[in-house]
Amino acid sequence: MSSSHPDVDLQAVHDALIAVAKQAGERILSARPHASSQSHKLNSIDVVTETDKAVEKLVYERLTAQFPSYKFVGEETFDPATDSLSADPTFIVDPIDGTTNFIHSFPYVSISLGFTIGLIPAVGVVYNPFTQTLYSGIKGRGSYVTSPLHDRVKLPLVPHDDAESENQTLNTTIITADWGDVRGGNDLDVRVDTFRSLVADLKDGGAMIQGIRMLGSAALNFCGVAAGQLHMYWTGGAWAWDVAAGWLILTEAGGRVVGANPNVWEPRLDSRKFLIVRPGKGQERLIKEFWSHVKGRLDVGDEVPESK
Amino acid sequence: MSSSHPDVDLQAVHDALIAVAKQAGERILSARPHASSQSHKLNSIDVVTETDKAVEKLVYERLTAQFPSYKFVGEETFDPATDSLSADPTFIVDPIDGTTNFIHSFPYVSISLGFTIGLIPAVGVVYNPFTQTLYSGIKGRGSYVTSPLHDRVKLPLVPHDDAESENQTLNTTIITADWGDVRGGNDLDVRVDTFRSLVADLKDGGAMIQGIRMLGSAALNFCGVAAGQLHMYWTGGAWAWDVAAGWLILTEAGGRVVGANPNVWEPRLDSRKFLIVRPGKGQERLIKEFWSHVKGRLDVGDEVPESK
Repeated sequence: MSSSHPDVDLQAVHDALIAVAKQAGERILSARPHASSQSHKLNSIDVVTETDKAVEKLVYERLTAQFPSYKFVGEETFDPATDSLSADPTFIVDPIDGTTNFIHSFPYVSISLGFTIGLIPAVGVVYNPFTQTLYSGIKGRGSYVTSPLHDRVKLPLVPHDDAESENQTLNTTIITADWGDVRGGNDLDVRVDTFRSLVADLKDGGAMIQGIRMLGSAALNFCGVAAGQLHMYWTGGAWAWDVAAGWLILTEAGGRVVGANPNVWEPRLDSRKFLIVRPGKGQERLIKEFWSHVKGRLDVGDEVPESK
Repeated sequence: MSSSHPDVDLQAVHDALIAVAKQAGERILSARPHASSQSHKLNSIDVVTETDKAVEKLVYERLTAQFPSYKFVGEETFDPATDSLSADPTFIVDPIDGTTNFIHSFPYVSISLGFTIGLIPAVGVVYNPFTQTLYSGIKGRGSYVTSPLHDRVKLPLVPHDDAESENQTLNTTIITADWGDVRGGNDLDVRVDTFRSLVADLKDGGAMIQGIRMLGSAALNFCGVAAGQLHMYWTGGAWAWDVAAGWLILTEAGGRVVGANPNVWEPRLDSRKFLIVRPGKGQERLIKEFWSHVKGRLDVGDEVPESK
């Protein structure tokens, strides 16, 4: 897609996103809702809302100063009811991904900075300031992790050998998933029945996966799958700003994004419903096995087409 | 209980456990199943089993050399079918808590080192070598966390003010839980129905909690609740070595341990089924509200009495 935008310097965008992620990370750490004061004047929700807005403003101001011609979509300012994503070069930003964790100072929190052209992710930066772990990538040039334990290692961090990957089935995987914001009706039924089928014993028709992790940050879940530490992530309800950066990091590592519902092989960035799979061989096999345990059909986000 | 063992120097035990936890942590990091080699000679399960045994041996040899008169219970060598816990001073050790995470290099892994007298935890040390986060405590002297972000801070790390705590209800909490090893029958039904009730909308009779986290290490879950980052942890299936250290850390922080099933107010250390609640006021209220969402009764571990 970048051929239609020959003037876009993806490396410059990437480097700017890393610089702003680090700065935003400082802001997030200093604003931890409870950590610094025993008696806080604002309640935790107020602190979070204020921090979310302040971080988005900081990111917006820095990026539009440096790249005035690109569009900007941020969680705090985008209204899905009236706005739609543009095919133009666009920054897609979640200032705090993992807001519930952040409210309670649980350190699985990130800033998620994506850049898309033609609705396709071209640059992604995800930074967890609590663990000082930075994931980043550029389309066609790979993705990387840098942390106190890893000095810029190419993803996947945990490569699987081909023979093991090719024949892998769900019962040797750990999956991550979430409950979404919809707490009733069809989607809750689908989730409950699907989780049950994933954990149940093989002899009862279950997948008997090794574990379900529920962690609370979509962007970090994408990065965990890109790293090869988690095998799949199933979500119904994630917004484009939750996934744009992680999508690029995952696919550059060799991972794949499909739909949360069966037979959606090419989901749109704004389709809300995703299943992703780790780098390595045997992806289609794992995807089809997972879809066979999806009990019903998630309908969140159905106002947008599921496929490209 | 230590009055009946006036010769026990809890500080010396505490300091020894920290030293051995750090050493074990080095061993765990260097053995990460995939991280260091692209082609591994052993499969991941072999590496894990080998590392589990090697770490337990290291811990056993150091502790019995320094404290030859105390008993030692380790996950790798204790047989629940034939062995039982002793009321004598006893080290209770899980060399790698979060084994499934460790297999896949997902960094929510700890070494859990407890010390009990009369089956009551008296010292606890839990160390995550991936994040270099150390939790420790001594009965009657408080518990602490040390990490790259926190230089020995007294727990809870995230204190809640009394007014907010006293009236807290489940719908302002994040809970952690697990599926256990039992993947069918009664306990799977109880879990599925309980999780559904916890996440469901208030208008449908649910608790509408802010989130369920499923993280994969019982010891770190206890520490997360002790820190105040997670509000409750509900588990059916944890062994004494998974919880002994965390139990001390939690209770010294002001948290409380009750049974996973309703009306078990004083669970035995080896009863397998626990509900724990964060430090602060309003604990009984949260416990009773949680129990009202437990759909049925977990029966794992019923060969041991639930209560003291």
